[in-house]
Amino acid sequence: MSLGLVSIKPMPKSEVSLKLHSQESDLIDFIEPIKFELAAVEKELSTNLIDDNPFIDELLASVLKSGGKRIRPMLVLYGAKASQSSAEEIDHKEIVLAVLTELIHAASLVHDDIIDSASLRRGTQTVNKRFNDRLAVLLGDLLFAQASICLSRLMSPIIVGIYGQVLGDLCAGEIRQMKQQFSVSVNWVEYINKSIAKTASLFSAGTRSSAILNQADDEVVDGLRKYGLHLGICFQIIDDLLDVVGSSAKLGKPTGSDLRAGVITAPAMFVLERKDEASKKLEELIATRQICSDEGAQAALSLILESGGLESAVGLAQKHGDMAKDSLSILPDSKYKDCLVELIKYVLKRAN
Amino acid sequence: MSLGLVSIKPMPKSEVSLKLHSQESDLIDFIEPIKFELAAVEKELSTNLIDDNPFIDELLASVLKSGGKRIRPMLVLYGAKASQSSAEEIDHKEIVLAVLTELIHAASLVHDDIIDSASLRRGTQTVNKRFNDRLAVLLGDLLFAQASICLSRLMSPIIVGIYGQVLGDLCAGEIRQMKQQFSVSVNWVEYINKSIAKTASLFSAGTRSSAILNQADDEVVDGLRKYGLHLGICFQIIDDLLDVVGSSAKLGKPTGSDLRAGVITAPAMFVLERKDEASKKLEELIATRQICSDEGAQAALSLILESGGLESAVGLAQKHGDMAKDSLSILPDSKYKDCLVELIKYVLKRAN
Repeated sequence: MSLGLVSIKPMPKSEVSLKLHSQESDLIDFIEPIKFELAAVEKELSTNLIDDNPFIDELLASVLKSGGKRIRPMLVLYGAKASQSSAEEIDHKEIVLAVLTELIHAASLVHDDIIDSASLRRGTQTVNKRFNDRLAVLLGDLLFAQASICLSRLMSPIIVGIYGQVLGDLCAGEIRQMKQQFSVSVNWVEYINKSIAKTASLFSAGTRSSAILNQADDEVVDGLRKYGLHLGICFQIIDDLLDVVGSSAKLGKPTGSDLRAGVITAPAMFVLERKDEASKKLEELIATRQICSDEGAQAALSLILESGGLESAVGLAQKHGDMAKDSLSILPDSKYKDCLVELIKYVLKRAN
Repeated sequence: MSLGLVSIKPMPKSEVSLKLHSQESDLIDFIEPIKFELAAVEKELSTNLIDDNPFIDELLASVLKSGGKRIRPMLVLYGAKASQSSAEEIDHKEIVLAVLTELIHAASLVHDDIIDSASLRRGTQTVNKRFNDRLAVLLGDLLFAQASICLSRLMSPIIVGIYGQVLGDLCAGEIRQMKQQFSVSVNWVEYINKSIAKTASLFSAGTRSSAILNQADDEVVDGLRKYGLHLGICFQIIDDLLDVVGSSAKLGKPTGSDLRAGVITAPAMFVLERKDEASKKLEELIATRQICSDEGAQAALSLILESGGLESAVGLAQKHGDMAKDSLSILPDSKYKDCLVELIKYVLKRAN
């Protein structure tokens, strides 16, 4: 399906040295202005800081080399460039910040896949499926440890505090999601809080901290914090939407996975709040747990598609995209600020 | 059994307000000079810093209220008192340091129990057994998150670095243990490295950081670092020994658990390196995995008891206890330094 959002002319791919996962090739558009920095991030991501042990090298590489969008490192690097007062090269600390932001994301995915008993991620088997839960626990902890070592290298207690809160938010987000499982009552405040905890808190930590490292003015730091926050909420809504429309190949996991697991996504919530025939049918599918079966999930997906749940979700995502854009108004104009705007469009375009 | 180590006269128990697990009542001897600080640690341990969510309160309390020796908070508090230049009250930051040191310990236990598929810890069911692996992953992460938030409050990048390395060491220790499972080759360097990574790294981080927070001289910081390191190694050896002689009630898990799981402990290594009849029999029990059965584990325990494996292990523990004591020589004399010495005796006395 096309949601009629902005399309962006791709850059010649030969100019880009960074290997991205094939399904994410449209991200290549954005990386040109930060390609050297992103290459440095890739190099540091696969560096084992913990122990001189080939098994640890192997474990770390098994998750970190599996691709991924690297959207969080991009946010840090563009945040750094856009909040710089001069056009100097960015400080090595910004690379370390980008690396640790991706490490925390990777760690949370590995542990989330155990918690959700997921078997597929980014089109490949999850660590818990390929090996077992025990190794996945260890690998997640290794990634958190590596992130902590990076964090200490920034020599910034404020940023340690920001990321400490992010770790708490990631756990709290998972708990909020558990608590809302199979719930048919629509509570948008709770939904937004869950999206912040699960996704936007880390986005926002990255953009905000990049400006803190640059010793940018408080207004710039706060502008980038809000940008990350709203972009993160927007990203989470689009993720919900892809659970309805994304093909298994594009999403890397089967369509309807969230619904089957009782995670009531934004498009489903828009149907549920209508209190009409469609919402009653959806409520019944959820309450009776029929939604966990192939037929039930398919019926729920059809209801959402027929009842405009998708369009409403796109509208909400667009609203947070606009708020992200508005948050940038405090930043001086630059090509990097433009890239941050383009990144909003990319996040929205994922639904195309 | 008695290994003839020093016994310490108990303090009147009525003077002590802190509730300790019954099996650890002999620790009451030590807490008098720091009882108010330890009470503050207990209070902060059960404070949820993450999210206003009763489920999180409940999860945190379920592990943190289950007792435990609190030996790591004691190390931090005595390190703080002994490295202070004046007799003032200790800074609140030392309490936070004691809390986060215990939180990291608790988190690593919860995740280790998943990795080891353990069902009993401190005489009660493990989180993975009582609930499931998924909740145990989340609870361990919550405890790490809470520790990170505490860490940020110290405003010390150096201490963030020290604890970042501890997190890496804890993972590396688990991996080293996995790699040495069912190995009959005796490598003491590898054994000591594993003991440092699993136990001594966190002990040492606590004592060292307590002195750093006090802005103590480098020699004092290093003395306390070495003290924690050798006491941690000593503690790990005694833990190995308790796997052979400790009753299930005292240890909180069945005797021989480590051996059954293929973890070759110090007493077993002392038998294996003898290259005599006993060592050949033990080698066979390990190589054939007979050691995993009740009869095999019992046969291995008997071999260790008959071949002096225990006495040799006590000797090694005593050696590291002595090295811990020697490391304190740089510290000025005080009743708190005396308590650190008593703590070595307590650790050794656990084998009585």
